Amino acid sequence: MNRVVRFHQFGGPEVLSLEEVPVPVPGPGEVLIRTRALGLNRAESMYRTGRHAAQPRFPSGIGLEAAGEVEAVGIGVTGPVAGDKVSVVPSFPLNEYGVHGEHVLAPRHAVVTHPANLSYEQTASVWMMFITAYGGLIDLARLGKRDTILISAASSSVGLAAIQIARIVGARPLVLTRTSAKRQQLLDAGADEVIATSEEDTVARVRELTDGIGAQVIFDPVGGPPLADLITAAAHQATIVLYGRLHSEPTPLDAGEVLFKQLSIHGYDMADITTDDTRRSQAVDFIREGLADGTLTPAIDRTFPLDEIVDAYTYLESGSQVGKIIVTVPR
Amino acid sequence: MNRVVRFHQFGGPEVLSLEEVPVPVPGPGEVLIRTRALGLNRAESMYRTGRHAAQPRFPSGIGLEAAGEVEAVGIGVTGPVAGDKVSVVPSFPLNEYGVHGEHVLAPRHAVVTHPANLSYEQTASVWMMFITAYGGLIDLARLGKRDTILISAASSSVGLAAIQIARIVGARPLVLTRTSAKRQQLLDAGADEVIATSEEDTVARVRELTDGIGAQVIFDPVGGPPLADLITAAAHQATIVLYGRLHSEPTPLDAGEVLFKQLSIHGYDMADITTDDTRRSQAVDFIREGLADGTLTPAIDRTFPLDEIVDAYTYLESGSQVGKIIVTVPR
Repeated sequence: MNRVVRFHQFGGPEVLSLEEVPVPVPGPGEVLIRTRALGLNRAESMYRTGRHAAQPRFPSGIGLEAAGEVEAVGIGVTGPVAGDKVSVVPSFPLNEYGVHGEHVLAPRHAVVTHPANLSYEQTASVWMMFITAYGGLIDLARLGKRDTILISAASSSVGLAAIQIARIVGARPLVLTRTSAKRQQLLDAGADEVIATSEEDTVARVRELTDGIGAQVIFDPVGGPPLADLITAAAHQATIVLYGRLHSEPTPLDAGEVLFKQLSIHGYDMADITTDDTRRSQAVDFIREGLADGTLTPAIDRTFPLDEIVDAYTYLESGSQVGKIIVTVPR
Repeated sequence: MNRVVRFHQFGGPEVLSLEEVPVPVPGPGEVLIRTRALGLNRAESMYRTGRHAAQPRFPSGIGLEAAGEVEAVGIGVTGPVAGDKVSVVPSFPLNEYGVHGEHVLAPRHAVVTHPANLSYEQTASVWMMFITAYGGLIDLARLGKRDTILISAASSSVGLAAIQIARIVGARPLVLTRTSAKRQQLLDAGADEVIATSEEDTVARVRELTDGIGAQVIFDPVGGPPLADLITAAAHQATIVLYGRLHSEPTPLDAGEVLFKQLSIHGYDMADITTDDTRRSQAVDFIREGLADGTLTPAIDRTFPLDEIVDAYTYLESGSQVGKIIVTVPR
């Protein structure tokens, strides 16, 4: 018996169901994993509602992150062997592999070992958040010591990962959140200062906190009109990394500001990193090292059992969490 | 007797006048040049009207480009000696040096020799246009063979320089101009295709000309709403170099487009290149070589004598030229 998460039409979390399918046989270059924990992502919500670049073929599987044990490997797979504890790095199109299920396939390049000090729940949570943040902050923006970084949507798992990575390189994370409700949690998570965007003037506050200089890096998944404020709060020669579009309206971009401050604005997708063997390895090594020495720590908000997969996504999409939502898979 | 161009208040070209001042004495690191030709730039118009980042102290000199003969050098200057034919690379703030006059000072780093096959008029025209285009296309965007580049405001001197540099690297210049009036001149200047933005649908035409792929590089001094169209016409992972803001309205930036196409948008100022010794030398060498072997050719629209400096700027600001405006300085 193999229960996997599938959906037959676009819609809310309720279109997801657990369906029994045969245990798949790993083809060339594939690894079969008996999962123990699954990580949930906004990209999956986008995919399920038809707003993702990858389009499903129905009935469709789903899922980018999982941790568990290797059951079998296909022809040509070297490295992982049956019994190894592994986790899955999101590095494949959602319509090619979906790892939310009990027995699932993943391509060899996506399967990595993780530090022994972490639980399955923890390792199912780390790759998307830390690779996205590492790629944006280190690989792309070259965030440096003493730089100030503005992190918006800071209570998301990627926002929390960005706070930790900023700390590792000696940068100063100023984090943005809608209201002050999550203020203390964000300070506990490593934020240097918390700016509640609906309660105070973001630009004025950033100027005050940076002696008028502004932020050298901006890491934003929102876009829309709020991004214009962040750009106003950017320092000379700042790098703006846009990694999502939670806001659907256009951003009124002041060309004079871009020009006079010599700003760089980049549209960034973590696939930039995960689909490039060299950059993915660098990211995985950086994160594995941080997890092993404790400078990076998983940020899990809540776990749900597999039977409650619909509730788990409903909770994810409510936006009330601070950190990652994990689903546990019983033995 | 030394006549130099000065102004005592902000305003139109009519605030400029030729005034007699003593021949200056070169200080440490400075070169005194007897000019023979001057190059005119939009940056000077901005400076004269108070819209430039550098603010004048009245009465103010003006001028970024000139060619002539070295008359004397200050303490610590090695390289140029009296009698050398030289030209001035714009690489200093407008409120520190102004080279529009008969006997003018320039900092040593700005003074270069030029290919012997060029006239003074020609060498007074080349540095701003070719360094701006080189910096944007090569140093920043890494324009490559077979890339398509969209060049807007193409009949400006920088636009014409960009067409030539695109040709040198084997890229395909698609050029944008308001009406088809300058179409033939732009084709003669090396444009692969000319798009008259007020007469045809820019996005549709770029798609048609690139088999639906779009342009890998966009080189734009305009900004404003028209830039949104250019971004729509950009290819996956395109680089957009914004080097001016002729349009003052904001650009409605679609974050989804920036994100899904993984675009990079850069505010670029040629001072990025000219204030960095290594990058300036690379640019000057590239351009000197191109001028010597004929792959780069000066594009002069019209010359005026020094006495007609007001008319020369009036003509520049009319926007009806194709190429550079030069002022000649009598012996």
